[in-house]
Amino acid sequence: MYKLLSLKFGVCNKIIVSKAYPLLYTHTRKMSSFDKLFSKIDELKPTFINRLAKAVEIPAVSSDESLRPMVVKKAEFLLEQLEANGFTDIQRKELGTQPPPVNDENLQLPPVILSRYGNDPAKKTVLVYGHYDVQPASIEDGWESEPFKLVINEEKQLLRARGATDDTGPLTGWINVIQAHREAGIELPVNLITCFEGMEESGSLGLDALIAREATQYFKDVDAVCISDNYWLGAKKPCLTYGLRGCNYYQITINGPAADLHSGIFGGVIAEPMIDLVQVMGTLADSKGNILIKGIEEMVAPITDKESKSYDNIDFSLEDIEAASGSKTSLYQKKEDILMHRWRYPSLSIHGVEGAFSGQGAKTVIPAKVSGKFSIRTVPDIDSDKLTNLVVEHCNKAFKNLGSPNTCVAELIHDGNYWLSDPYNSSFSAAAKATKAVYGVEPDLTREGGSIPITLTFQDELKTSVMLLPMGRGDDGAHSINEKLDISNFMKGMKLMAAYLHYYAESPEK
Amino acid sequence: MYKLLSLKFGVCNKIIVSKAYPLLYTHTRKMSSFDKLFSKIDELKPTFINRLAKAVEIPAVSSDESLRPMVVKKAEFLLEQLEANGFTDIQRKELGTQPPPVNDENLQLPPVILSRYGNDPAKKTVLVYGHYDVQPASIEDGWESEPFKLVINEEKQLLRARGATDDTGPLTGWINVIQAHREAGIELPVNLITCFEGMEESGSLGLDALIAREATQYFKDVDAVCISDNYWLGAKKPCLTYGLRGCNYYQITINGPAADLHSGIFGGVIAEPMIDLVQVMGTLADSKGNILIKGIEEMVAPITDKESKSYDNIDFSLEDIEAASGSKTSLYQKKEDILMHRWRYPSLSIHGVEGAFSGQGAKTVIPAKVSGKFSIRTVPDIDSDKLTNLVVEHCNKAFKNLGSPNTCVAELIHDGNYWLSDPYNSSFSAAAKATKAVYGVEPDLTREGGSIPITLTFQDELKTSVMLLPMGRGDDGAHSINEKLDISNFMKGMKLMAAYLHYYAESPEK
Repeated sequence: MYKLLSLKFGVCNKIIVSKAYPLLYTHTRKMSSFDKLFSKIDELKPTFINRLAKAVEIPAVSSDESLRPMVVKKAEFLLEQLEANGFTDIQRKELGTQPPPVNDENLQLPPVILSRYGNDPAKKTVLVYGHYDVQPASIEDGWESEPFKLVINEEKQLLRARGATDDTGPLTGWINVIQAHREAGIELPVNLITCFEGMEESGSLGLDALIAREATQYFKDVDAVCISDNYWLGAKKPCLTYGLRGCNYYQITINGPAADLHSGIFGGVIAEPMIDLVQVMGTLADSKGNILIKGIEEMVAPITDKESKSYDNIDFSLEDIEAASGSKTSLYQKKEDILMHRWRYPSLSIHGVEGAFSGQGAKTVIPAKVSGKFSIRTVPDIDSDKLTNLVVEHCNKAFKNLGSPNTCVAELIHDGNYWLSDPYNSSFSAAAKATKAVYGVEPDLTREGGSIPITLTFQDELKTSVMLLPMGRGDDGAHSINEKLDISNFMKGMKLMAAYLHYYAESPEK
Repeated sequence: MYKLLSLKFGVCNKIIVSKAYPLLYTHTRKMSSFDKLFSKIDELKPTFINRLAKAVEIPAVSSDESLRPMVVKKAEFLLEQLEANGFTDIQRKELGTQPPPVNDENLQLPPVILSRYGNDPAKKTVLVYGHYDVQPASIEDGWESEPFKLVINEEKQLLRARGATDDTGPLTGWINVIQAHREAGIELPVNLITCFEGMEESGSLGLDALIAREATQYFKDVDAVCISDNYWLGAKKPCLTYGLRGCNYYQITINGPAADLHSGIFGGVIAEPMIDLVQVMGTLADSKGNILIKGIEEMVAPITDKESKSYDNIDFSLEDIEAASGSKTSLYQKKEDILMHRWRYPSLSIHGVEGAFSGQGAKTVIPAKVSGKFSIRTVPDIDSDKLTNLVVEHCNKAFKNLGSPNTCVAELIHDGNYWLSDPYNSSFSAAAKATKAVYGVEPDLTREGGSIPITLTFQDELKTSVMLLPMGRGDDGAHSINEKLDISNFMKGMKLMAAYLHYYAESPEK
């Protein structure tokens, strides 16, 4: 474990390097003291599953403008839940209209929900963040059941619905932890602040500014931020996460004729935007996982020997990635290569095309305007603005080389920086103890390939440490079909949250 | 005109070379004899527009399995209209279940509607073909109004709806022509047979077999086939069409992980099907209009000097293609080049991708299975089977070069051969006279870039000549948004149909 401690964290300029503590896994709190609380959590299982069921039934897809009222409806549902469970100072923070590109210029952003549980100056204050919006989902995508209806599969011991693991399960988990304390008659040893947003899946629009505004207001006494919005590395062992990749999302739009055309009448005569787009997108990445845009590789922080060795202890294997993807399509065979490409190298994914024919069957259309969507996951020391300049220049050059009479615009849709923290500070240490108490094992200390840009904003604006405490597993299918959360992860995850708050309360430093 | 006559038609092996007639544009029929009929057509304008409105309100999208009941409903509407207008021997021909690939294995094909008007052995028999199914359409695609609601724009003198020009307008036109004869008390000088199908936009599944079956039954006395399912070359001058390109529609399916994945967690680690697909599709065609699949160019019939000169007389210009496409994105500047690439050279269009993200905004998904759709318009002397072999081999080789662990299947979805006829036979001559009588000009004799595969089937199975008699204009937006039919084209188009039947009835030969 001490190997990891000496990792060169300086690769990320913005991180807070706090003093590292030896991990005291000797349990200062008798396990028996958690018994009452954990029993209450077990007893309330039907109530907690019911709360999750009601929450995921609301299709709060933030990227779909037509579903914006549903995102707001879900916020209102959560406001009721907070009120019913004794939270105070509940504030529905409006963020104004959504900035372009947007179809409805007057589209309002969904609210951020702030609330407190406890306000004792003698206690530490923990801010817990979650998001109530979800990724799009449709049964036509291949779901086994309606994505916005919670399926409780007793046989497989799992809960299936869009949002089960990302992030409605963990978010409601915090409310549940408070309910369990109240009903068990156990005092919460910290002050808790909630910050629940509804735009995480669409770039957390408006949240950065809110955090900056509230840093010296609502959030002024926050000692630690805990975010439960990621997953275990695999499906077996709990982990604590101290690093994330960033995500820069781009689109290349090729504009040709004024409207879609018949390929019989115009095929061979008109320069087709879709043919141009395929050519330009073909220059972005190859099938071996290499990004072909020049200048990116040079920005990636080099691997030290110590970092290289740190991968030895992680509980992960090729079989894990094959199980999680349900295929033998990994680009790498060795554990170290897989983990490094997941969390310390950039990657480029092509997500799809807007404006082209996307249905079943055969439609003989020449699409008039097509937008190719792709994103680059960023890592230390990639500079977001510099990356965007490289991407836009690359696309413009690739398009110019085609000599097409169409027009091309390459642009950033949203970006979020990478994040790297110190996995031995008091917050991480408390979570490590909690993991031992609940799961009986010491957690792996991991980084993640995904992006939660707001992590960095909390760290910078609140000048405090942030920790990622995952509830779900690596095979939960977040952003995919048949998203699920194992019932054991839901139940033990809440116990973990609760134990974390207790261990953090008694840690010697803030 | 005689230049065209001497075109070498032998480029298409299957055409029927009939004796060519000098065009007798001296009107054997006094124009005044049409007055009564044409007046009646004008008088019935509100009835005819109302019939079209009722027909296009039914969203008969044949490629959308869920809308199949609507296709059948439209068939039933037409059956009522035929019955109400005195057609006899009306037969609703069922075609059985739709062959795979299909989601619902029991999906029934929509019926073909056969009917007669008149059965006098002394008269010639004309079979008129039309299709009542339509291309998909959604207001979200950018329509100015609901696509399945007829907009009667008196200011612009046009009718806007999906199907207005392709092909519900022309199809109902034939019923209207009979109604006009009946109400004017004018005897129809030919026997008319209708053959209306509901799968044209999806490969006319089942129709080939029906035509083969009925060739010696329902269709046994047919002397000429007239198809009104194409468009003028531009927006000004009527034409008769004697050639069509074929269409071979393909898909390349790349299969990777078992389900869609989160690009944060799996990006850079998993071989992405979408990246493979973009690479393979990038090898199909360049942005200059060139097909990059080897062996296709060699199959194209060479241009003779005579053919080359035949383009001189056609009323068409760069401005027409720019007006029709609403853009300056033509690959060629010269009229001859545009026309040749439209109707005598093959073209390749990429239509879109099934399975990838196609919505608005940003979704960070790695699609698990993606199908790229593209088609090749075929011309003399391209052999369909040979072409498919070349395409599949090309795609397999391009995919193999990627070294991807994913799998790739390239396959034909449907094909339809090209067609070329003799534009001086008795049917074409009659239509030329009718054009002169209605529009006051001699029609251009043109070929088309689009495909109506059934044209060739009628010709081969019925051993008779087929003619394409367009009603709409080149800028009607068939298969595109805001599909329209000019009111003058609708009204004059019906007069043209009527006059054609009269001139053909009195032509010296069958």
